[in-house]
Amino acid sequence: MEKLLEDILEKNKILTNKGKVADYIPALKKANPEDLGICIFDIDGHVYKIGDYNKKFTIQSISKVITLMIVLKDLGEEIVFNKVGVEGTNDDFDSLYKLDMPNVDKPANPMINAGAIVTTSLIKGGSSEEKFNKFLNFLKKITSNNNLVVNKEVYLSEKETGHKNRAMAYLMKSKGLLEGDVEEILDIYFKQCSIEVDCEDLGNIALTLAADGKNLKTGKEIVSKGIARTARTIMASSGMYNGSGNFAIDVGFPAKSGVGGGILGVVPNKMGIGVYSPALDLKGNPIAAIGVLKDLSKKLDLSIY
Amino acid sequence: MEKLLEDILEKNKILTNKGKVADYIPALKKANPEDLGICIFDIDGHVYKIGDYNKKFTIQSISKVITLMIVLKDLGEEIVFNKVGVEGTNDDFDSLYKLDMPNVDKPANPMINAGAIVTTSLIKGGSSEEKFNKFLNFLKKITSNNNLVVNKEVYLSEKETGHKNRAMAYLMKSKGLLEGDVEEILDIYFKQCSIEVDCEDLGNIALTLAADGKNLKTGKEIVSKGIARTARTIMASSGMYNGSGNFAIDVGFPAKSGVGGGILGVVPNKMGIGVYSPALDLKGNPIAAIGVLKDLSKKLDLSIY
Amino acid sequence: MEKLLEDILEKNKILTNKGKVADYIPALKKANPEDLGICIFDIDGHVYKIGDYNKKFTIQSISKVITLMIVLKDLGEEIVFNKVGVEGTNDDFDSLYKLDMPNVDKPANPMINAGAIVTTSLIKGGSSEEKFNKFLNFLKKITSNNNLVVNKEVYLSEKETGHKNRAMAYLMKSKGLLEGDVEEILDIYFKQCSIEVDCEDLGNIALTLAADGKNLKTGKEIVSKGIARTARTIMASSGMYNGSGNFAIDVGFPAKSGVGGGILGVVPNKMGIGVYSPALDLKGNPIAAIGVLKDLSKKLDLSIY
Amino acid sequence: MEKLLEDILEKNKILTNKGKVADYIPALKKANPEDLGICIFDIDGHVYKIGDYNKKFTIQSISKVITLMIVLKDLGEEIVFNKVGVEGTNDDFDSLYKLDMPNVDKPANPMINAGAIVTTSLIKGGSSEEKFNKFLNFLKKITSNNNLVVNKEVYLSEKETGHKNRAMAYLMKSKGLLEGDVEEILDIYFKQCSIEVDCEDLGNIALTLAADGKNLKTGKEIVSKGIARTARTIMASSGMYNGSGNFAIDVGFPAKSGVGGGILGVVPNKMGIGVYSPALDLKGNPIAAIGVLKDLSKKLDLSIY
Repeated sequence: MEKLLEDILEKNKILTNKGKVADYIPALKKANPEDLGICIFDIDGHVYKIGDYNKKFTIQSISKVITLMIVLKDLGEEIVFNKVGVEGTNDDFDSLYKLDMPNVDKPANPMINAGAIVTTSLIKGGSSEEKFNKFLNFLKKITSNNNLVVNKEVYLSEKETGHKNRAMAYLMKSKGLLEGDVEEILDIYFKQCSIEVDCEDLGNIALTLAADGKNLKTGKEIVSKGIARTARTIMASSGMYNGSGNFAIDVGFPAKSGVGGGILGVVPNKMGIGVYSPALDLKGNPIAAIGVLKDLSKKLDLSIY
Repeated sequence: MEKLLEDILEKNKILTNKGKVADYIPALKKANPEDLGICIFDIDGHVYKIGDYNKKFTIQSISKVITLMIVLKDLGEEIVFNKVGVEGTNDDFDSLYKLDMPNVDKPANPMINAGAIVTTSLIKGGSSEEKFNKFLNFLKKITSNNNLVVNKEVYLSEKETGHKNRAMAYLMKSKGLLEGDVEEILDIYFKQCSIEVDCEDLGNIALTLAADGKNLKTGKEIVSKGIARTARTIMASSGMYNGSGNFAIDVGFPAKSGVGGGILGVVPNKMGIGVYSPALDLKGNPIAAIGVLKDLSKKLDLSIY
Repeated sequence: MEKLLEDILEKNKILTNKGKVADYIPALKKANPEDLGICIFDIDGHVYKIGDYNKKFTIQSISKVITLMIVLKDLGEEIVFNKVGVEGTNDDFDSLYKLDMPNVDKPANPMINAGAIVTTSLIKGGSSEEKFNKFLNFLKKITSNNNLVVNKEVYLSEKETGHKNRAMAYLMKSKGLLEGDVEEILDIYFKQCSIEVDCEDLGNIALTLAADGKNLKTGKEIVSKGIARTARTIMASSGMYNGSGNFAIDVGFPAKSGVGGGILGVVPNKMGIGVYSPALDLKGNPIAAIGVLKDLSKKLDLSIY
Repeated sequence: MEKLLEDILEKNKILTNKGKVADYIPALKKANPEDLGICIFDIDGHVYKIGDYNKKFTIQSISKVITLMIVLKDLGEEIVFNKVGVEGTNDDFDSLYKLDMPNVDKPANPMINAGAIVTTSLIKGGSSEEKFNKFLNFLKKITSNNNLVVNKEVYLSEKETGHKNRAMAYLMKSKGLLEGDVEEILDIYFKQCSIEVDCEDLGNIALTLAADGKNLKTGKEIVSKGIARTARTIMASSGMYNGSGNFAIDVGFPAKSGVGGGILGVVPNKMGIGVYSPALDLKGNPIAAIGVLKDLSKKLDLSIY
């Protein structure tokens, strides 16, 4: 396995040249496009780490999976999926035109921005701070990492430049699809996206999802088996935005990407994977990380389909 | 003429029952749906007033014509129409989906909300206050009314509930179609819309437009002949939103409506008309006021087509 | 006037280099891009002709005005405008996406392809031939030209390659917005578009429209005053497709263009104008012909706005 | 297992009242809305049949899976997926507006109508008949049923009323996204959809897909392991149209529905399932059949996620 990972790392390292680091805010541009790191936890307790597995990056859209689990836990599927759909979409992750159609009454799914803004609005809490802390604490628990912090530079930049997200949120507000104070919701959303993690953190989240919601070290249930499966199902059809269908054919297991460069990959009942490569493809997905997952899947026959 | 107006008023009074006063903010709901007032200034100096011609209402979208004139005066057609189009549209006045299309780079025209937000952003001034005062002073001059004030209740309500306008503005900001601070631009926009006028004020604006930009009492040019014509032309194709084509067939001269109940009607080189009827049709246009203009046009053969 | 036209022709001749002859079918590509011809009939009986005024070209979309008059005459405004709208649109002339929206129940206006396919379907007649002959005879009458014929090469080419028009027609058929046999309707539509005319023919149509529907030589009414005005009104807001608003500002009178290179311009109660220049701009409008109309309008102050 | 199926049949029988038999053509309306049949083949050779498992119905959209396999076999993934995408969509199965967008160059996936029209166009053959026979022979082979025939009444009805499909096909033709003669392609498409099958036929197709492309009785490879997996993957994200995401959560294995009332369900390496219930939900999916699959999946833990 170690040898396999070395080969896969080597082979996909060259892919990093084909992508581009996210540049919509200055802080993200600082990432080294050539970085590539992998961390795998298997269900039997083995750990495999290689490359830049301990480099920090912001979690970005991978936070959408966390938010989904939190609100499913608090409110249940019926309430949550009454507010956000569960269907894949071939529109861009930050598309909003469809929300302006008279017959559309919720975002397609919680893995695109509009959907995640809705799930963020559903986090319970007396104040903005309480809501964010709920998110952060859940993330600390599922990563078994108490040292997670927000990257302030990224957070403030996202907040300052997140006009498209604002547009979506206000559009949904105007149609009654979003409750609460828009700026407060967006503030929590931007903060969530700006938490720094590394491949080990992602691997731990992934392993918990692979293990039906249980922390395998402590034996404690983080989320129920049902929620873990629902999260995996939605990640499978929508986790890579409008590249999800292609990813399903090439890789074939639930995953979620972020523009920070991370991908969380879940092989049900087998392993949790965290990969980091900040160079992105045209759809905003980490290009070398996808290459890694593709090779892993082929070599170990990991597709669930 | 007096008799004609009396008959027309009488006849269209019943139409007020077929519409509904705008109710998206409480302040607008207070209007009396049965109100109907007319004020006509002809180019030879005659004045005809009847009904509720001196009731106050907020100018709302009629302000879009004022903003257009101000920025055309300051910047010229080339700069302005580089930022906002001049084409009619069959989409709703507050539609925004098209702005999310990759090949769309400006709002259809300055008579719909998105377009007026752009023209508002183009008003010159060192501060938000200076920009708004520029608008207010221009409006005072063209109405020959120094007593115009903002209805604070309406303004604050619009500001609080104007989520769809915010969505548009942030969407345009995210695409680089809108420069400046979004909340500042919207603040000016909402304030403009909340200025109180009456039929006489509208009649004075309309007369100036009919008289090629001149104040006929003082002989002074408010805007150039070219700007007056451009404003009339755009009002003709887009002044009644996606009811403009129908209005052109039924009435046939440039006009602009507002959800406050006002319509400004311009018969080039003949007369300026202000009508007030707060009961609106399904497209947000004052229903009895349109009836009045229809009858006037038929009786006096006022269509320009 | 003769001198003015000479100057205008000279000046706009160079614009022909900036456009491109329609090339979606081979037959249209044969046109000489440098051609430019003008024919003006004024209401007092004067005739002015210059340049390539007697070159033949296919009438194309200008036929949409003819079809509209025929069906308004036969069925009246209520029935016709129940099936096709009268609003301008900023979508392309052959756009169809909006017809797929659940809340859209008719094409925007009869000057875009979808709308003209609907008006064509409304022509009365026992057979396809009878319907087409109704069109042709009306065209002969309004042009005072008995020698009009279909250009078979163009007709067959249009029919063979008119996939986008077919798509529109079948889409409307599937939504119940179009009655009758689709292929038969399209056959009549393609045939109509392929009739050859010259600037004089267009000038005659335009003069009739300018003269409120009357043939000024014979004194006979071709269409009623009301229909003539309705046709002029719709041409004003939609005759140049999604370039109509711009044309209204630059030229300012009702007109209709065709990809064959013709433009019909109507100055109400003043003159009828036919211009021919097959080199088209990006919106499919004859580029030098628009230049001619722009100069004519400026020099003679012909804008109706 | 027999008892389980009896219970499930009983329980879901009542769901048939909540749906409506497809009624866009008279022939489909003849189906008995209360029918419900199930046939399951497991990978170890067991067969379970219950209810109306041998009633005949037209295969309809389930044919899309067959066509996909045929063209993947003949042309390979690269060529096929260059012409049709593999992404899920939250648009209706017969939506076409997106194909009119300038930046869209292929249908979302081969499980919606537009995508299946494209895959149908890719079937190789010297004539229309040859192409259809290629389809029919493949279907006979994969169902191990040599008696499959086209229901002529349904075929002719589909052909006569398939205006929306025609619209899509001509739109794609006009954009160069579809090669060949549109009417010929549609004729094959309509004929494919009109072949009569029963639950056993569907079960056999499903079993072959579950067994990685092999006919388990003969040991022969019908399609390669790779094609079988690709087909399963695409069915998982798009097989139930814009209800696919919901189905993935509720049921969780690859499936394809048809408006004739059939559903094909594939549990990889476990079983192939055919269910029939002609009463459809609002998205055009067989309502009681979905209920059956949901219960089966819950009871036997069949979700792949």
